[in-house]
Amino acid sequence: MSITFDLPPAARPGLPADAIDTPSLVVDLDAFARNVDRMQAAADAAGVKLRPHAKAHKCPDVSLAQIARGAVGICCQKVSEAVPFVRAGIRDIHISNEIAGPAKAALLAELARHARMSVCVDDVAQIDALAAALSAAGTTLDVFVEIDVGQGRCGVPDAAAALKLVDAIAKHPGLTLRGLQAYHGSIQHLRGWAERRDGAARAADRTGNVIARLEAAGVRCDVVTGGGSGSVEFDLTSGVYTEIQPGSYVFMDADYGSNAYTGSLRFEHSLFIATAVMSVAAGDRVIVDAGLKSMAVDSGLPWIWADGAPSAALDYVSANDEHGIVKPRQADARQALPPLGSRMMLVPGHCDPTLNLYDEIVGIRKGVVGSVWPISARGLSR
Amino acid sequence: MSITFDLPPAARPGLPADAIDTPSLVVDLDAFARNVDRMQAAADAAGVKLRPHAKAHKCPDVSLAQIARGAVGICCQKVSEAVPFVRAGIRDIHISNEIAGPAKAALLAELARHARMSVCVDDVAQIDALAAALSAAGTTLDVFVEIDVGQGRCGVPDAAAALKLVDAIAKHPGLTLRGLQAYHGSIQHLRGWAERRDGAARAADRTGNVIARLEAAGVRCDVVTGGGSGSVEFDLTSGVYTEIQPGSYVFMDADYGSNAYTGSLRFEHSLFIATAVMSVAAGDRVIVDAGLKSMAVDSGLPWIWADGAPSAALDYVSANDEHGIVKPRQADARQALPPLGSRMMLVPGHCDPTLNLYDEIVGIRKGVVGSVWPISARGLSR
Repeated sequence: MSITFDLPPAARPGLPADAIDTPSLVVDLDAFARNVDRMQAAADAAGVKLRPHAKAHKCPDVSLAQIARGAVGICCQKVSEAVPFVRAGIRDIHISNEIAGPAKAALLAELARHARMSVCVDDVAQIDALAAALSAAGTTLDVFVEIDVGQGRCGVPDAAAALKLVDAIAKHPGLTLRGLQAYHGSIQHLRGWAERRDGAARAADRTGNVIARLEAAGVRCDVVTGGGSGSVEFDLTSGVYTEIQPGSYVFMDADYGSNAYTGSLRFEHSLFIATAVMSVAAGDRVIVDAGLKSMAVDSGLPWIWADGAPSAALDYVSANDEHGIVKPRQADARQALPPLGSRMMLVPGHCDPTLNLYDEIVGIRKGVVGSVWPISARGLSR
Repeated sequence: MSITFDLPPAARPGLPADAIDTPSLVVDLDAFARNVDRMQAAADAAGVKLRPHAKAHKCPDVSLAQIARGAVGICCQKVSEAVPFVRAGIRDIHISNEIAGPAKAALLAELARHARMSVCVDDVAQIDALAAALSAAGTTLDVFVEIDVGQGRCGVPDAAAALKLVDAIAKHPGLTLRGLQAYHGSIQHLRGWAERRDGAARAADRTGNVIARLEAAGVRCDVVTGGGSGSVEFDLTSGVYTEIQPGSYVFMDADYGSNAYTGSLRFEHSLFIATAVMSVAAGDRVIVDAGLKSMAVDSGLPWIWADGAPSAALDYVSANDEHGIVKPRQADARQALPPLGSRMMLVPGHCDPTLNLYDEIVGIRKGVVGSVWPISARGLSR
């Protein structure tokens, strides 16, 4: 029996947004564009370069929009993740992470043939492995020493350890020290504005101290890169960072949306999951067709979005693999439950791993599908 | 600048397992085959048909191996998910779920041209929508009435509601009632063996009562389908199910591995994530290259696997997007930490959404790559 069909697309430009098959990942193109503009304007006003992080979206169309507005390049978190961005024509990519293993070093050395590439190190062995791969490929690479500014993850603890790496880098003609990476991920998600301000200030202080110690030893850091969507307003005025690398700001998510902001620099929710009610048989709840395979729940369950704000009437209370359970906030308010087949929009708890579940982002503008962007680096975690 | 390269594969058959790039999803082919055989033998001994669930793996090679050993067909949870299985030649597929919207009904009606398809209903409106799509396509479909046996998700609550749906199905010549679906997902994950036994017994009792009420009304249920990897030993002897639909048993995961078993029917851990240590700079922990984008954490963090069992020395304590933090179980046991670049195997907390993150499963046998299976239905959640 010959199979003469394939899966139809979830959306096509020009169709009404209500015709998008569910579950699908949807971006409000106008809110997205305002977020892109707002971050670029803030970076420009501060005289700091913007190198947005592509790990948040894995979508070259997003990066190209950011670069068109003034971003100097992008960050990727994995070497494999960078491949579709290089293929899309992006020519300045920082791997904001350490890498392990000869396969990754070889791929990075190959990518360096096509784009200006940089990577982080926190161990002499990584430097030696990079140098060997570059020598084999005949290419060169910029290198950042990562310092741990409180995250407790990668990065050397102090200037003395950083200086050892600076010396090791200098031994290899294929490697050029570009500066420091100082990123503190957990600060981004502190709920209070003052907490984030104080956390960012401590990270900036630690970074400033290392810069001063390196300068005293005759080592200049041309670039100091770091910062994220939750700390960027502090990073921009810290006087320490020459370059910021936020990613999630283009979309926001329920986790970032739960942070308190003062209003000086906040971003709009532009990312949603379109879902539909597939069962109402239980009576006191409805079941929607987006579950664990359609959203990441590591940072909490999604918000139900209604009239431009989180719903006050309905809660998404539980995620199964392919089902979501939606209940009225007041147990007796069954009349608030939507009917079978009706649609709703969810704001995912955590945008980065949610994007990593989808093959495309459906862009909508004024109720009509405007774009379908491939998430070309989805699943590229090597 | 022309781009003359692409991402190299993570693995190729014949290479040593230690050469698999990280992070990668790996299956122990011998343990997998034993799991497939063990479940088939148990179903055969009980005289119950086995229709394994493909939502656990989304990989046609897995389903074909199960069918070769005697499975009567497969389950899928979404209509789009079934497409690659039909294309791979599988000719008997049950959509163990309700569907909402005309696009899904139309696709199902199209699939029914190529395979024997069935689907669940719990509302008259779903039946009418299916009938309209089948009429337009000129195809036919088997239908199961889903009953809620305690899960509180989809399914009608009782025999009276089921009978209304039976009547509605009978009105449409394109639809044939095949029987009942009775699945209780949360029983699967009860830790105690006796708890699961009692939960499965309650679900079977509720199912048996509905069957009796339907028979008293002159409605015969040829097929009663349900059951999962955590309850299967009880489902097989319940006398209620004619068909079981477990999925995770081929792989197991840390969540299923945390259940207590008596030994009568237990399965082996065959699914792992190969990861590598990418940073040791912190000193009191190491950082591995598999995080939230390489495993689902909704059911808990992964186990570190060492010598055929969960490690007693190391714990994976935190998952960031692309990083995992590994610490010695005893805080002062730094000598237990593995060196930079060393590899470890993780057992993911929850197999289904973890498989949904990868494009392929690398099969290993005796330390050598034996197969690379595409996860063709990855991301197909519509």
